[in-house]
Amino acid sequence: MRVDGRKADELRKVDMIPDYMKHAEGSVYICVGDTKVICAASVEERVPPFLRGSGKGWVTAEYAMLPRATQSRTIRESSKGKVGGRTMEIQRLIGRSLRSVVQLDRLGERTVWLDCDVIQADGGTRTASITGAYVAMVFALHRLVKAGSLPRMPVTDYLAATSVGIVDGVPSLDLCYEEDSRAKVDMNVVMTGTGKYVEVQGTGEDSPFSPEELNQLLDLAKGGTERLIACQKEVLQDMGD
Amino acid sequence: MRVDGRKADELRKVDMIPDYMKHAEGSVYICVGDTKVICAASVEERVPPFLRGSGKGWVTAEYAMLPRATQSRTIRESSKGKVGGRTMEIQRLIGRSLRSVVQLDRLGERTVWLDCDVIQADGGTRTASITGAYVAMVFALHRLVKAGSLPRMPVTDYLAATSVGIVDGVPSLDLCYEEDSRAKVDMNVVMTGTGKYVEVQGTGEDSPFSPEELNQLLDLAKGGTERLIACQKEVLQDMGD
Amino acid sequence: MRVDGRKADELRKVDMIPDYMKHAEGSVYICVGDTKVICAASVEERVPPFLRGSGKGWVTAEYAMLPRATQSRTIRESSKGKVGGRTMEIQRLIGRSLRSVVQLDRLGERTVWLDCDVIQADGGTRTASITGAYVAMVFALHRLVKAGSLPRMPVTDYLAATSVGIVDGVPSLDLCYEEDSRAKVDMNVVMTGTGKYVEVQGTGEDSPFSPEELNQLLDLAKGGTERLIACQKEVLQDMGD
Amino acid sequence: MRVDGRKADELRKVDMIPDYMKHAEGSVYICVGDTKVICAASVEERVPPFLRGSGKGWVTAEYAMLPRATQSRTIRESSKGKVGGRTMEIQRLIGRSLRSVVQLDRLGERTVWLDCDVIQADGGTRTASITGAYVAMVFALHRLVKAGSLPRMPVTDYLAATSVGIVDGVPSLDLCYEEDSRAKVDMNVVMTGTGKYVEVQGTGEDSPFSPEELNQLLDLAKGGTERLIACQKEVLQDMGD
Amino acid sequence: MRVDGRKADELRKVDMIPDYMKHAEGSVYICVGDTKVICAASVEERVPPFLRGSGKGWVTAEYAMLPRATQSRTIRESSKGKVGGRTMEIQRLIGRSLRSVVQLDRLGERTVWLDCDVIQADGGTRTASITGAYVAMVFALHRLVKAGSLPRMPVTDYLAATSVGIVDGVPSLDLCYEEDSRAKVDMNVVMTGTGKYVEVQGTGEDSPFSPEELNQLLDLAKGGTERLIACQKEVLQDMGD
Amino acid sequence: MRVDGRKADELRKVDMIPDYMKHAEGSVYICVGDTKVICAASVEERVPPFLRGSGKGWVTAEYAMLPRATQSRTIRESSKGKVGGRTMEIQRLIGRSLRSVVQLDRLGERTVWLDCDVIQADGGTRTASITGAYVAMVFALHRLVKAGSLPRMPVTDYLAATSVGIVDGVPSLDLCYEEDSRAKVDMNVVMTGTGKYVEVQGTGEDSPFSPEELNQLLDLAKGGTERLIACQKEVLQDMGD
Repeated sequence: MRVDGRKADELRKVDMIPDYMKHAEGSVYICVGDTKVICAASVEERVPPFLRGSGKGWVTAEYAMLPRATQSRTIRESSKGKVGGRTMEIQRLIGRSLRSVVQLDRLGERTVWLDCDVIQADGGTRTASITGAYVAMVFALHRLVKAGSLPRMPVTDYLAATSVGIVDGVPSLDLCYEEDSRAKVDMNVVMTGTGKYVEVQGTGEDSPFSPEELNQLLDLAKGGTERLIACQKEVLQDMGD
Repeated sequence: MRVDGRKADELRKVDMIPDYMKHAEGSVYICVGDTKVICAASVEERVPPFLRGSGKGWVTAEYAMLPRATQSRTIRESSKGKVGGRTMEIQRLIGRSLRSVVQLDRLGERTVWLDCDVIQADGGTRTASITGAYVAMVFALHRLVKAGSLPRMPVTDYLAATSVGIVDGVPSLDLCYEEDSRAKVDMNVVMTGTGKYVEVQGTGEDSPFSPEELNQLLDLAKGGTERLIACQKEVLQDMGD
Repeated sequence: MRVDGRKADELRKVDMIPDYMKHAEGSVYICVGDTKVICAASVEERVPPFLRGSGKGWVTAEYAMLPRATQSRTIRESSKGKVGGRTMEIQRLIGRSLRSVVQLDRLGERTVWLDCDVIQADGGTRTASITGAYVAMVFALHRLVKAGSLPRMPVTDYLAATSVGIVDGVPSLDLCYEEDSRAKVDMNVVMTGTGKYVEVQGTGEDSPFSPEELNQLLDLAKGGTERLIACQKEVLQDMGD
Repeated sequence: MRVDGRKADELRKVDMIPDYMKHAEGSVYICVGDTKVICAASVEERVPPFLRGSGKGWVTAEYAMLPRATQSRTIRESSKGKVGGRTMEIQRLIGRSLRSVVQLDRLGERTVWLDCDVIQADGGTRTASITGAYVAMVFALHRLVKAGSLPRMPVTDYLAATSVGIVDGVPSLDLCYEEDSRAKVDMNVVMTGTGKYVEVQGTGEDSPFSPEELNQLLDLAKGGTERLIACQKEVLQDMGD
Repeated sequence: MRVDGRKADELRKVDMIPDYMKHAEGSVYICVGDTKVICAASVEERVPPFLRGSGKGWVTAEYAMLPRATQSRTIRESSKGKVGGRTMEIQRLIGRSLRSVVQLDRLGERTVWLDCDVIQADGGTRTASITGAYVAMVFALHRLVKAGSLPRMPVTDYLAATSVGIVDGVPSLDLCYEEDSRAKVDMNVVMTGTGKYVEVQGTGEDSPFSPEELNQLLDLAKGGTERLIACQKEVLQDMGD
Repeated sequence: MRVDGRKADELRKVDMIPDYMKHAEGSVYICVGDTKVICAASVEERVPPFLRGSGKGWVTAEYAMLPRATQSRTIRESSKGKVGGRTMEIQRLIGRSLRSVVQLDRLGERTVWLDCDVIQADGGTRTASITGAYVAMVFALHRLVKAGSLPRMPVTDYLAATSVGIVDGVPSLDLCYEEDSRAKVDMNVVMTGTGKYVEVQGTGEDSPFSPEELNQLLDLAKGGTERLIACQKEVLQDMGD
């Protein structure tokens, strides 16, 4: 029995409010338990320098937390004057993950920015960001298709992410903050709708883990991402045509 | 008749969701028309260096916008590596305004941080921030009183802010973005519950204004802040005891 | 009777040395009591990105203090690696104020930079900067007209600024540093030669102020800016033709 | 047959010059093929703020490349004024990996800094850095033991890292730069002497990968790290006593 | 005959206005031809970390130019967010030079800051800064002696600096801007009242120079610094007692 | 007899490993005693903005130290977020020195970057950098000539640098760290193969020096640079044709 009463292979309650933001081309307010993230997709009609003239598009992400998303107030990165290592790591992860299911050469020379702003943090903010950003991105791309700017959707698969870890010796799915801070092993897994891995990031800083443990964690992650993708499908089916 | 059908002296619809954030000592989600701001109050048990040992407390504010709060995406200040002039001006204004109704010597050596994060921008974000931050601050201070950390509330008055301006020749209350970008004169007024001015900031960059116009604008602002304070009272009466 | 023997509605001694700098297109060394500012106007034959191709010009300002302009040494902003909030607020104010009396579309695609460097500070440095920068700007624009680069002066009015405040309960004009640090209410007013307001910035952080007090302060400011404009006219009449 | 004639499960030539630096408490010049990294361990008799008074020590890493370690010159991060995302990610990885085999509570309140400076880059610089930094750290800790500053070695296991990836459809060990830039899947694996995982970081940005492929890559990594640990043992046995 | 009619071994007109700044412990406005620098000495009752507890004092300098001190406007270093290489080089030079004639162990644990702000630049700003900063520093130290904070003056000698160079093949003293930009060899020399060298910085970037040329330049510099020191003595004799 | 047994006019052992870096157009690993520097020359086919369209080329340098090149660990400048004054001074010196022997108008519109990275520091790192960078630059330019990109070598002379100083009263050549930290006078001299001065930088912060002492130091420097140039010739003769 886990701290919040869940079973080891149980996700927290997932909720997604589509089109949360008036101005964004696509957006979703995703809640995974008490973790809440606003994901907004913005389409910009140009690409970074290294892609200019290539005919290819780009997908990139930025991630931040409101100062009081956390238990005690966190200093803003704008006040510090620099983006921290953890933030950079997360936004690089989100961007890489989303690009893995987009045909950049079919996107045209435009950039899709995904802004993931954590309103409230209770563990798993980076995986909730990926799961929500996928939905925001699909909304934005769908709008481009409807507007005739794109001949068809350049998305090849569904994509969702979850965290898994070993808490008090038990491999568990979708850790909340309290579990996460006690976990010996911590892994983030990003998977596609066809069950392939896009990212596997496991770390055993406090306690190296065996191949058997790795397999148990990967199994839990598979179940979790399947259920998250089911939620995404529900939200996306109302996208209209 | 204004762009959104309002009368010249009419506020937009005001809505405040109290206790929006799980972790903050006080918080409110304030909506003034399509302008939406999350205001969170955090209590920190220490003061800036210039107050150490003085027995006095401090109230300060930070202000930011989500990148896609605006019509086109705005670059994050954390990415730029510095806080811009407009942001600094606004957060200094919020802090000064709130301090005007707090007895800092009765607060004890602690700091109340007010984080105003604009989720969606449609004009008047700084005045909505002040109006919301006041409520968040009162919640946080009330919690300190209930916990016995403060003998009584160190707040001397209500406080709200609104914008006024001359749009197409007509002095108008509470400008939305479209009006604001067309206004010749633009003024932000912060007032107390007893009808005194805390801040009057009027600018006629595009067209200097006469003493008569100044008076008309100040009258409109008076009516607007009175109604905003009525809304604050409604939210705060449920604060319990 | 004030700290330096002045009456409540009396300005400090004002002195302006025109053409103080050898290289600048226009310059003035303005002294208002012990507050001393070098204002230099530089003409640059290009505009910021947002105006390129618009046919319009731009007027902007920068403000700084020598480290020992103040009673105790102030750390340089270049050493800190960033421009502080107070400085940004002031330079935005100076730029806005001057643009209000310039026809930017008649300036051509060029920028007038106004550098206001405080050599000695004794209260009212921002208002002395505006009053002096106006003169430096007029000199520089006059030189453009004489050189045939501009068909005629694109300046619509005179412009001066002063501070007012309530010191020991008495509304007073042109506060020196000692008065300023004791003032309950502090207001900066920028006015044109035809008696219109360009900026009204009043703050009652320590003590909110009534509508009556606001009116008394505005009256004092009117008298002060009228006298400052008289001084400007004297300096400018020698500009030759 | 690979680009440099190796078999799929073959490491490049590994060479380690111990005690390369005169001043460092421990150091090694590690070459893995044409990838060359100087790893230096520095012992500092204090810990970061979050550990002060805890009795615990800390292990942390910094990573950089000489500008001309790469095929075309890379701009220095000191010139850019900030450490990039890739660098931060790598130095966080190195630090976490090394901490996983150190008993921080037995280290005392001191910090071991591991500086990994890439002299020449040909793929696998982060894994070579981990493998070399482990040796440099052991030298430095051994010196502390010999000097009586530590009662015994606080190291629990060996530690090495290697990269694996799928190149032209073939799962391959220890990718050189040319292979790395063509690889569809890219994984870095950090393992202990007892065959446990410390870090598993696999990314399929260009092509998501199946569970079968994941297993093949993990098998290759196991063989690779075993051989690297054998090399470490050889260098460390001469450490004396 | 030089560009401004001087002989090869002739200084420009030197003028020093003592006590130019109201707030500074010591100050001088030095003019060497059209080069004008305000030098202010500030005494701070503490020292940098590396001297705390040593009983020794410190002397350090900062140097800057007003943006329009130069022929075309120079961007402020505060706006760029960093102090440039030329500025750092100059302020290090000024600080080192002044320390050479101060007995730091007799200064007590205090710092003398020397701020050299160039109001107008026409060549030789760093040497004018050193010559003026010496006077400002002596004024400030003299005030400490008079106030009883120092038993006696901790200054061991006079100190002045000048520039020399080879212009159109002619070794010349005290180059103005036009000469400086044409000079093949450029040298700054800092000398004491007893004719010793404190700094010799010669550079022949455009044309290496012979030992004979070096000697001619050093002779000119000797004459120049002797006359500058005579000017310093005149200003300092009025210091009173 | 000096601390390491050398005579007053004796250089430390000099060693240069040419072509140390696989990717650089020219490189050398120079050791002067225990001071070790990797010098790499990179050719970039463009010039800084101020030279665009001029037909001229540019030579510039960057200098850094590995954190553990020094006795105790030095914080990286990338971590501090800025390049320090000492580093800027040194890289400006290296760049100026090398440009003095290159015909920039014969180089074509390209830049030669010289990266001098100190692997180990024991005094004289800036002079070793100049001596090594000259060799790396000649290798890179020779490669351009061989490739037909340049019609002939644009180098006018040999160039080497050494330090001299007065240690315990004795004028000495090529100071090691221990001597350098005890020296009263410290001078760096850059000379050409024909015995001319490119840079003379002498400083007597701790003790001003007489003209006689200056001459003794310059004599020692002449002998030292002659021997360094002899070493350069040996390495360069193998450059082939």
